[in-house]
Amino acid sequence: MQEMWVQSAVPYLQRRGFGQQIIYSQTLKFWGIAESALAEKVAPFFDLSNPTVAPYASLGEVKLRVSALATSVAQAQEIVQPVAEKLKLIAGKRYFGADDDTLASVVGQLLRDSGQTLSVAESCTGGGLGQTLTAVPGSSQYFLGGVISYDNRVKTSLLKVDSQQLAEKGAVSSTVAEQMALGVKNLLGTTWGLSITGIAGPDGGSDNKPVGLVYIGLATDSTVKNFEFRFGATKDRALIRHLSLCSALDCLRQQLYKSII
Amino acid sequence: MQEMWVQSAVPYLQRRGFGQQIIYSQTLKFWGIAESALAEKVAPFFDLSNPTVAPYASLGEVKLRVSALATSVAQAQEIVQPVAEKLKLIAGKRYFGADDDTLASVVGQLLRDSGQTLSVAESCTGGGLGQTLTAVPGSSQYFLGGVISYDNRVKTSLLKVDSQQLAEKGAVSSTVAEQMALGVKNLLGTTWGLSITGIAGPDGGSDNKPVGLVYIGLATDSTVKNFEFRFGATKDRALIRHLSLCSALDCLRQQLYKSII
Repeated sequence: MQEMWVQSAVPYLQRRGFGQQIIYSQTLKFWGIAESALAEKVAPFFDLSNPTVAPYASLGEVKLRVSALATSVAQAQEIVQPVAEKLKLIAGKRYFGADDDTLASVVGQLLRDSGQTLSVAESCTGGGLGQTLTAVPGSSQYFLGGVISYDNRVKTSLLKVDSQQLAEKGAVSSTVAEQMALGVKNLLGTTWGLSITGIAGPDGGSDNKPVGLVYIGLATDSTVKNFEFRFGATKDRALIRHLSLCSALDCLRQQLYKSII
Repeated sequence: MQEMWVQSAVPYLQRRGFGQQIIYSQTLKFWGIAESALAEKVAPFFDLSNPTVAPYASLGEVKLRVSALATSVAQAQEIVQPVAEKLKLIAGKRYFGADDDTLASVVGQLLRDSGQTLSVAESCTGGGLGQTLTAVPGSSQYFLGGVISYDNRVKTSLLKVDSQQLAEKGAVSSTVAEQMALGVKNLLGTTWGLSITGIAGPDGGSDNKPVGLVYIGLATDSTVKNFEFRFGATKDRALIRHLSLCSALDCLRQQLYKSII
């Protein structure tokens, strides 16, 4: 199909006079901000006619597509670029990349450029964070591996989570998230350890700890942090797991910016 | 949208006289057989008119949808059932489940019913096997966790893969696949250890070991086996990883049938 398009359809359309003008688009990507909140911040841009700015959202990721009509790609890029730069400035740290960039590829680029390494410890995502990181070709340069600690015995035996604190605070707690991140960092000898523990549902929730409660742990040799998220509104196991691992990548991205810049 | 369909569209269609007859379908699912090979085996069934039998295929999974027209679900099921049973018999061990069943849910059911447990060791899939297993609610009853041994140092330090054999045979080899499966089974103390090591590409292939070469290891206390696959024809990193983890689940499924029945 792709070959048919390139070899037949495009030349045909060009012969028919289409293609005198081209449409060039750049898609800016954002994490950690609701579509409505971003739309409010950049509302005046939606009135532009060339380039146009249009919002899209899917599974937690928000996008702004900036499109220009011009007679060449170079000319279109000149129209798109200044508007794209303004949008990035307004969104600040919520902007993470453009076009084919993903949270995993951006994190990977930051790690590679700074010569740092990463390992993961996953509970409710069961390996999804590792899978997402290794979807990026060449990820073996900075991603060493990790531990899927789905069962609590794996948390204590491999990741050295304190069994008394595990019993007191519960597997889904800021304490256990931090100990998981520290544990995997020490076990694999990486610069960063990144962990996820949460309740993906449909069962396992309580009044105190509802379905969708997720803790991210992030450890280096000198510091350990945790981040709390509540994704329960979705009531969707797959979506809670997806949002959890994307949020983990975003936490690391923010910390990498801070430590590098 | 779903609520609109149930509360408005369905009653409206019923009032208009649709729904006097119902269509009931059962989808039979197969793994480890090409769509064309299965179609050839069951070709005469495609000529039936009630029920009809239609083939579908996606990402390595082949499906046959058996659909009946009748005045009630019970009547339709009576029409579908004997044909479905014949199709299952013809496909033999290639048939793994129907409708909402997945390879992971079927493996999970077999493990749960027999009181057995599972751990995984993943290289090229980077956690995808664990993620797929834990996509099934309640998987904590039989899935304890695993090790993402993306880097060779994790294979030797955590999974006790012999470093000399690793150097001689290479990370993508039947020997290392078996040692990874044994290693994770021993480390986590599970009934089964299931491993994947392969070359997902786009880089890393050679004449001897091309992109798409994948070894699955499967270990219990008494035995260890390996299975070789070649998925290079796809030249698609994501698809090679998907086929690898589905094939690993299918290897385990076959062994579970043998050990239970």
